[in-house]
Amino acid sequence: MLPERLTRLVSLFSRLPGVGEKTAQRFVLHLIAQDAELSRRFAEELALLPMHLRPCDRCGFIAEVGEAGAPVICSICLDGKRDSRLLCVVARVQDLLAIERSGAMRGRYFVLGKLLSPLEGIGPEDLPIETLKRRIGEGDITEVLVATPPSVDGEATGLFLARELASHNIRVSRIASGVPHGGDLEFADQITLGRAIEGRKNLL
Amino acid sequence: MLPERLTRLVSLFSRLPGVGEKTAQRFVLHLIAQDAELSRRFAEELALLPMHLRPCDRCGFIAEVGEAGAPVICSICLDGKRDSRLLCVVARVQDLLAIERSGAMRGRYFVLGKLLSPLEGIGPEDLPIETLKRRIGEGDITEVLVATPPSVDGEATGLFLARELASHNIRVSRIASGVPHGGDLEFADQITLGRAIEGRKNLL
Repeated sequence: MLPERLTRLVSLFSRLPGVGEKTAQRFVLHLIAQDAELSRRFAEELALLPMHLRPCDRCGFIAEVGEAGAPVICSICLDGKRDSRLLCVVARVQDLLAIERSGAMRGRYFVLGKLLSPLEGIGPEDLPIETLKRRIGEGDITEVLVATPPSVDGEATGLFLARELASHNIRVSRIASGVPHGGDLEFADQITLGRAIEGRKNLL
Repeated sequence: MLPERLTRLVSLFSRLPGVGEKTAQRFVLHLIAQDAELSRRFAEELALLPMHLRPCDRCGFIAEVGEAGAPVICSICLDGKRDSRLLCVVARVQDLLAIERSGAMRGRYFVLGKLLSPLEGIGPEDLPIETLKRRIGEGDITEVLVATPPSVDGEATGLFLARELASHNIRVSRIASGVPHGGDLEFADQITLGRAIEGRKNLL
C-alpha cells in the first residue's frame, strides 16, 4: 500500500531510541506534508554529522573531529583547568550534561554507554571496563565518582565498578541518594526516604 | 557547551510531531554514538524523499512524483475500479491507511490535514474547504462520508463540513460511533454507550 521508499525511511526512524513503527510513520508523513526544504536541511545536517562529531576517544563525550587520523578529544578532556585527579563515571552523555549544568564537578568524565541489565541481557562483558582501567592507568586519578542513576541497574553497575577497581588503590565514591531539593517528604517513596535517613549527616 | 552543529540537528528533530528538545537531543546523541553508516543512510533517504514522494494534488494522500511539472496523483485517485461517487473525508493520512486496512471503503478520499480546533487556534478558514468543493465539483460524487475522529474537534469539523456542503445536493454521511468490536460494555465511557444506544439498529 505504501511506497517502498517511505517504508525504508520509516524503518530508519524506528532505529531511534523510543521510536516505534507508528511514531516513525508519523514522522515521515509529517515530512512529506511539509515543505521540501525541511527534508533537505535534515539530509544535509545528517550527512555532515559523522564527519564533524564523534564520541571522544578518551571519555565518550561528544567531540569535534579534527584532522583525519588524529585522535578525537573533547573539550572537557582538553580543558587544562579540570581536576585531573577526579574521574566521574556516567551511564549516558545526557547524564554528563546534567552534571555539568550543576557546576559541582570539576574533574573529567568517562561515559559507560550502558548499565548492567539482566533484563536487557547486558552483562559485565558488555561494559567498557578495560577502556576505563586504561583511562585510570593513564593519568594521576585518585578518585572515581560513580554517578550512575540510583536505579537497580545503576546500583548494580556501581557495585560492579567498585569491585573491579578495588585493586587500583584509588577511592571509588558514589553520588548521594536521598530526598531531592524542593521535594516533598509526603510524596517521597520508601527507598528514597530510607536512603535519606541512612545517609544522614551532622548539621554542625 | 554543545557544538553548534549538534544544536542545529536537535532543533530540526524538534520539528517532528511530538518530539520535544530532550527527545531530539536523545536522537542526535544516539546517532553520534552509532556507526556513521546510519546517519549517512538517513541523510540519503531524506535527501531523496521530496524528489520522489509528495501529497497527491487531488486528495492529499502520498503520491509518487512522476515527470517534472506533471500533476502528482496517487494510486487511489488513479485506480479506475474505485467507486467515483463516494468521497471519504479524513483528517490525516494515517486515518486513510486505517480505513483502507478495513477494506470497507471502495470510494476515494480527501485528506483535510487538520481539524477545527479552537484550542489550537485552527478555524474554518484554515481548512481546505475550497479545494474540497472543487474536488466535489469535478466528479460525479453523490456522497461525502465524513470519517473524522469521534472527538470534540472531529465532530465539530464534521458538522461544519455538512453545513458547507448542504447546498451541493449530495448526501453527507458520518461514520457510526458506538462500542468498538471486542469492547467491553463495563469499561465503555458514558458518551460511547450513549451513542451506541442512540444509534441502535433493528436486528432483523
